[in-house]
Parts: sequence; C-alpha cells; structure tokens
Amino acid sequence: MLNCDMGESFGCWKIGNDAAIMPYIDMANIACGFHASDPQTMNHTIKLAFENEVSIGAHPSYPDLLGFGRRSMSIQPGEITNILIYQIGALVGFCTSNNTELSYVKPHGALYHDMLTNNEVFEAVIDATSVFDVPLMTLAGNDSQAQLDIADKYDVPLLFEAFADRAYLSNGQIAPRNMPQSVLSTEEDILSQVAQIVNYGKIRTLDGYSLALEPDTICIHSDNSTSLGIIDKIKKILTHDLGV
Amino acid sequence: MLNCDMGESFGCWKIGNDAAIMPYIDMANIACGFHASDPQTMNHTIKLAFENEVSIGAHPSYPDLLGFGRRSMSIQPGEITNILIYQIGALVGFCTSNNTELSYVKPHGALYHDMLTNNEVFEAVIDATSVFDVPLMTLAGNDSQAQLDIADKYDVPLLFEAFADRAYLSNGQIAPRNMPQSVLSTEEDILSQVAQIVNYGKIRTLDGYSLALEPDTICIHSDNSTSLGIIDKIKKILTHDLGV
Amino acid sequence: MLNCDMGESFGCWKIGNDAAIMPYIDMANIACGFHASDPQTMNHTIKLAFENEVSIGAHPSYPDLLGFGRRSMSIQPGEITNILIYQIGALVGFCTSNNTELSYVKPHGALYHDMLTNNEVFEAVIDATSVFDVPLMTLAGNDSQAQLDIADKYDVPLLFEAFADRAYLSNGQIAPRNMPQSVLSTEEDILSQVAQIVNYGKIRTLDGYSLALEPDTICIHSDNSTSLGIIDKIKKILTHDLGV
Amino acid sequence: MLNCDMGESFGCWKIGNDAAIMPYIDMANIACGFHASDPQTMNHTIKLAFENEVSIGAHPSYPDLLGFGRRSMSIQPGEITNILIYQIGALVGFCTSNNTELSYVKPHGALYHDMLTNNEVFEAVIDATSVFDVPLMTLAGNDSQAQLDIADKYDVPLLFEAFADRAYLSNGQIAPRNMPQSVLSTEEDILSQVAQIVNYGKIRTLDGYSLALEPDTICIHSDNSTSLGIIDKIKKILTHDLGV
Repeated sequence: MLNCDMGESFGCWKIGNDAAIMPYIDMANIACGFHASDPQTMNHTIKLAFENEVSIGAHPSYPDLLGFGRRSMSIQPGEITNILIYQIGALVGFCTSNNTELSYVKPHGALYHDMLTNNEVFEAVIDATSVFDVPLMTLAGNDSQAQLDIADKYDVPLLFEAFADRAYLSNGQIAPRNMPQSVLSTEEDILSQVAQIVNYGKIRTLDGYSLALEPDTICIHSDNSTSLGIIDKIKKILTHDLGV
Repeated sequence: MLNCDMGESFGCWKIGNDAAIMPYIDMANIACGFHASDPQTMNHTIKLAFENEVSIGAHPSYPDLLGFGRRSMSIQPGEITNILIYQIGALVGFCTSNNTELSYVKPHGALYHDMLTNNEVFEAVIDATSVFDVPLMTLAGNDSQAQLDIADKYDVPLLFEAFADRAYLSNGQIAPRNMPQSVLSTEEDILSQVAQIVNYGKIRTLDGYSLALEPDTICIHSDNSTSLGIIDKIKKILTHDLGV
Repeated sequence: MLNCDMGESFGCWKIGNDAAIMPYIDMANIACGFHASDPQTMNHTIKLAFENEVSIGAHPSYPDLLGFGRRSMSIQPGEITNILIYQIGALVGFCTSNNTELSYVKPHGALYHDMLTNNEVFEAVIDATSVFDVPLMTLAGNDSQAQLDIADKYDVPLLFEAFADRAYLSNGQIAPRNMPQSVLSTEEDILSQVAQIVNYGKIRTLDGYSLALEPDTICIHSDNSTSLGIIDKIKKILTHDLGV
Repeated sequence: MLNCDMGESFGCWKIGNDAAIMPYIDMANIACGFHASDPQTMNHTIKLAFENEVSIGAHPSYPDLLGFGRRSMSIQPGEITNILIYQIGALVGFCTSNNTELSYVKPHGALYHDMLTNNEVFEAVIDATSVFDVPLMTLAGNDSQAQLDIADKYDVPLLFEAFADRAYLSNGQIAPRNMPQSVLSTEEDILSQVAQIVNYGKIRTLDGYSLALEPDTICIHSDNSTSLGIIDKIKKILTHDLGV
C-alpha cells in the first residue's frame, strides 16, 4: 500500500500534481484546511481519490497556513483534540457529499513529529481519531509500549508506515531534514530502501545500524520529484514482490 | 420553539452569555468557525446545548471573521456549497464526539440575507444542507415558490422562523438595521410582536401593513439585551399560549 | 513605463516568475499580505525590485487570501481606508529596512474595480494614499471629474495606466473576464494594442469603438503567459517608439 | 512611567477598558493585528493614546490570533524579524495618519518570553526594532551581557520594565502563570511590590530571595482587575515618590 499527501493547494495557489500521482497510490492523506487546502480543494481531492479508488485519510495539522504546519506550536492536548475533530469532521462532510467515507487519520508535519515524541500529544490525536472510528497512521519502528497502550485504551487501530525517501536514525526516528543525506534523492537509493523494507523488513540507518521495519504502508513525499518520477517502480516493488 | 445564535466567542474573546440563555431556548444556532467560534468554543457550546436538551443547528457563514460574517461576499454558488459543507461537517464532528446529532442548518448574517434574495445562493445553501439530511431554517413570510421548488428538488424540509425583536417590511423582509425602529428595543414592543405572531399569526409592519407570519420557531438575538432580559416572558408566551 | 503585479506567493506556495520579469519592468505592484504575500515574501520582493532599480508600489487588497482579493466585499469606506493604511504601512516598513522607499499605491483586484465605479471607495483609497505622500495608480480613460476632484482635495497625484493584454469597452472600462476575447492572448493582439496606445493614444474597443488612452504606464499581467513571453518586445515598443 | 497593553479587541469582539485606563498610563503597548487588533482598532487606539498624550509602543506578536500570541512557535529568526517589521510598519502607518509617532517596541506574549531566553530570538527582535530607530522594552533584571551586546551592535537602546502584578523568581524571570501565587491579586501585594521597586530598587522573589530591579517603567496587566482598580494608586506611587 502506497500513501501520499494530497490536496495541498490553497485558493489560487496550486502545488503538487495530484491527478498524475493518484492513479499510483492506495491511500491519500488529504489536507483539511489548517496547513493547506480549502473547501473547494478538499471537495476536488475527495472526488479525485474516489474516482481512482484510493482510500481517503484525513491529514490534519496545527493551525498554521503560513508555516504549512511545519512549525511546532505549544497547544494544550485538549485543544489539539478539538482542532483535529474540527478538521476531520470537515473532511468527513465532503466524504458524505461524495458518497464515500473516511478510512484513516494521519497528522501532518510538526504535529506528526510531536505525537511521536510526546505521549500527551499522541493521546490527543488518538482521542480525536476515536471519534471517527478509523485507524491512526503512525511511524513504524517508533512505537513505544506507552503509545500502544493509549491506542488500545481508546480502541483505535494503528497503521504503521515507513518512508521511501527519508533516511532513518537507529532510534527509529526519521533523520531531521537539516541533517546531510536525510532526504533520499537518487532513484537508486529510494528503490533500494523500498526493496529492503519490503523484502527484508529492515533498513540501514544513517548512523550505520540496522532497523527493523514492518510497515503496513509506504509513504512517498509529493514534494520529492525523484520519488514521483519512479512512483511506478516503487508501486511495482510493493505489489509484485510483496503484495502489500 | 425559541431559537438563538450561540457560541459566538473566538479564542480569548468572549461574547454572549450562553450559559444563561441556553436553559430558555429550544434550538441553538451554533457558529462554525468562519464568522465566529473555534474548535474549543464549538465543543463547549455543543456540550452546553446537549446538557440543556437544546436542538443543535449549524450556523455557517461567509469566511469573514474580521467582519463577523456581516459583509456580503461575491462567492460563486458552487464554492458557497463547499464552504458550508466544510463548516457543517466540522460541527457534526463535535456532535459525534459528544454523542449527539445535528438537527438543522441556519446560515448566518450576510449569507442568510443573500439566500433570501438570490435563488442561486439559496440553492447553494440547500445543496449543502441536503448532504446532512436535516432541515434548513429560513425566514417565514419570505419564501417564494422558486425557493420552495428548490428545497423540494433536494428533498430538504424548511423550518420557518420569525424574529421577536426585529421590525418587518410589508414585503416580508426584515427592516434593515440602518432604518429607524428596525430593532425592537422595548420590552413592550417585543412581547407584543411575539404575542401577535403566536396568537394571530400576523404582525404590523414598519410601513403600516399587516403581514401574515406562521413560523415554526421564534428567533431572539443574543446581542439584544432587552430580548435577553425578558427571555422567560417570551418563552412563556410560546409555551403557554400556543404550545409551539 | 511598464508595471506588473509582483510578490504574489504565499508561504510555501509560489506563483509568478518575479526574478525573470523584474529586469524588464519599471514599476512593481507589490502584494501586502491581504490577498497574497507574507512578511518573508514582501521583504524578498522589495529586495528584488531594489536590485533591479524598479519603483516600488503598494498593491493592497480586500482582506481575502482565499479568494485572492478578487471578490468584492461590502466594507465601509472608513474601514477600507484603515485596511489600506495597515497594508501600505507594512510595506513601507520593508522599504525602510531595505533603504528604499515607496513610490505609489495601486489597489488590487476587486478593490481596484470597486474604486473605479464607486466614488466613496475611490475616496477611501485616496485618503489612505495621501497618508504616504505618493501618487495613486488608476485606470486611464476611466476617470470622472468627481474622481479628479477627490484626488485634488487630498492633494494626491494620479498615475494613469492602460492594460497591454486586456480588451476594453467603449465606456473606458476593461471588458470583464467572463466576456469572450476579454483577455488578449496572442502575441500579435497584445503588441498591436500596445503600439496603438503608444503611437496613437487610442485603441479599438471590443464593442467596436475608438477609445482615447494616454497612460503614464502600461500594465501587463503576470499570469498571462503570452504577455510575459513577449515582455522584451513590449518593453522595446515603450522605450524606443515613445520613450515613456 | 506606567505601561499597559492596549488595543487588544478584534473585529466585533471587545476586550479591555482602554478608555478608562489610558488617562493613567504613560506608555501604551498597542497590538498590531497578529495576536489581537485589526486596522479599525489600531487606528482607534492610536487616536486614544494621542488624545491622552500617551507614548505609542508597537506590541507585535507571533502570528496566532486564535491563541492570542501566547503559544510559542518555532519560527526562524530571519522570519521573526520580517514578521515584526510587517506589524510595526503597519502601526507606524497609523501613527503617520494621526500625525504622531512610534516611541518604542515591546513584543507580546510568547515572543516576549522567547526573546528573554533565546538570544537568537532576541537578536531577531532587535534587528526589526532597529529599522524604526526606537528603543526595545525588555524585562529589567533579566538582561544578560550577550543581550546588551546585541542591542549595542544594532545601536538599539533598551527600556527596562518591571511588573506590578506578577511575582518574580530569583533568576530574574517572572514566575510562570501556572505556579501558585505567580499573579499578584490583592491590592496590598501589588502596591507593596510597586513601592518596593520604586523606593528600594529591589523586591522579594517567590522563592525567597531579594532581586534588584531598577526599571525605567512599570507594567500593569490590562486583564488583572485588581491592578486596574488601583491604577490611580499605582500611578501615585510612581509620580509622587519617585518621579519616574
């Protein structure tokens, strides 16, 4: 299963090439208006996903359009939950109007990172997700027992993802963007990482260790042009070699 | 049935006295974040309505926080529909998280006025409302055959409201706020108008005519201190005299 | 003198090719954050204009990022004035920090259109412009005596512009975008219109009349790819044939 | 000299009682639209300050209207500088339109706290302040040599303030709001703290030490009703006893 961020245009500003990518992916993480997107774009993106038989995921964020949701904000957990219910609810509105439904939630940007490292934020996200009776997508290899317990407490299934085009550290986290070689940018590196994950369930980390990764889905970044150029090859590794 | 706009605070800015009003009303028109409110306020207001056994209505608006949704914006009908689906969907999210449900939709401010005079806007609003399978609240005495036909086409029931504290014109519209005596501000005038509607199904308009009004619900304005001061008396007229 | 809208990106969303256009233009209409742009983009655009010895104009708008300032909003004149002072003041801040200065004001989108047809809006714009002691750019051939009187009353000089790539109506207004042939899209049509203006001071309108136009500056639209592709030829007509 | 945050309403939402407070203060920290205020409110507040012969300070913030600027955001220093230039420039626009001028800059909320503990943020603030050739107001007793050096490098004078109604810690910082007794709420405590500062240049900290404080100005919080109720008494201590 291949997942990718979709619908990140805003008003007259267009980014991404959703129409070209959608046929290759299985799960679309759709922006909900707080880091990107707007009602018109959300409706259009849901339609596009539906036509391509792609699962619809809510991709909510901190309220920071100017910073594209990439800046951490010190928001209390209870408010994070409500910020997510608002965004996910809005997306569900468009699912309903297009006769389709929400399949999962995956937080965006700084919120995604914060939930991985802060259990209070993780619980706030799980709490909001539980309202919609869908799974939460999180980072494979990074889950702690505490997080599994929280998900269990709210009865929210977890979907684990691995990144096709980002280097990892031995602690299971993604190497920060400001670290050299943190973003895989050659065709060879990306395909090799995908193949390692799919065939062996483990990858080589940037700091020289082996990291076990058995994800439910692989994420490619819609702003990584190399990834997009070989999306058909990535898709082939996933479907042929493993059948995920 | 008494309806009133609720939940119109924003962030740290509080307005209205929702906790004091909620026990007297039957239907709460709850702001959805585009002219007022935010995720925290929406959640709080839904809880308050639920505790007081008050029906929950979505009160969506043009996207204009600075202008409190009171300024008309020339937005295409298709975009208006999506702007409403977004807001109503978000509110439904909080209904779900609080184990309650949405009962109706009533547009706010300039959008309410625009739908009364522009059938394309009316259809855009009906279209959005139909997604959520609830009635639309609109102005009693102002409906045209064209509007009834549109509501019928989308299979959306209409709820008609009359205003306790606003003067009417003989064409069935509310007298604009900048017209003298357009806002009823004495206890006597307001109670008299409510009693006329309830007992006789008609009122005296500002321009001296008699206007037939048989509303399903009476609206009082949460920013009219006189109305709020006599909300118990208004409520009594409605429940005792007519049982609406 | 060639003028063009510049700096209309927002956050991570980039539009336009300012670096390629700036060397050919004389006057940059720089967005101020209400329909497009943000503090980073404004600073960057001012720097780019300064390096290319291009005059800096403030390009303020109605507060409508989602609609790119293209939707009319019914805002009171006094508030329009303050909305413009805010935006122009902010741009002047970046002029000061880059050791340059503001040369003129040109409203954007719906506000530009509204000031041409509504004298109260025109006066609100003139009032804001007068605070900064610079001229206002407006549409050549469209000025009424009333508008000239208003500008005179506030002692604000007017700069008149004509459009290289938009068709005109005989009343001096630009043909609305939804009218066929309202946007000139062939190289020949655009160069011909510019040459007519420069050489003869008049053009042929869409409805078949001759319209006198003696502008101080010619505007090309940064979102018209044909215009941009021949910007060097347009510039040549202006500088060689007329020396404007 | 007494300073107070002013002009923190937003659109239709009013907070504070500026008209009642302005006659007692000497310096008004005026919100610039990013955590509170809007063009109408800014213009109105500048007028009020001018009429009361109160010095005008820009009170810029992180871009977070929903959170009232009280949430830290991880924004790069260069962008912080531009965010401040935008806000201060906008306020200067209203100073110019009202024939008055800006006297100083004092950051708001989370940005104020961040500049006290992070020298890169402090330098970003100083950089923006230097554009407008005015002093920066910062916390007395909290300045490090590094901060003095930064201010010196940009040739920006510093104004030091102390808080009338907040408890201090021995490290010179204000006790966080979530610490018991961090906000002084009795008349006696507030007047005593002001008198200690004014008469002895030192106060007793919450953790039991003596802290030297020789501020240029005393700040009272506009949301502390006790402070406001005794603003005349605070003012009297300042003017009679010390003549600050």
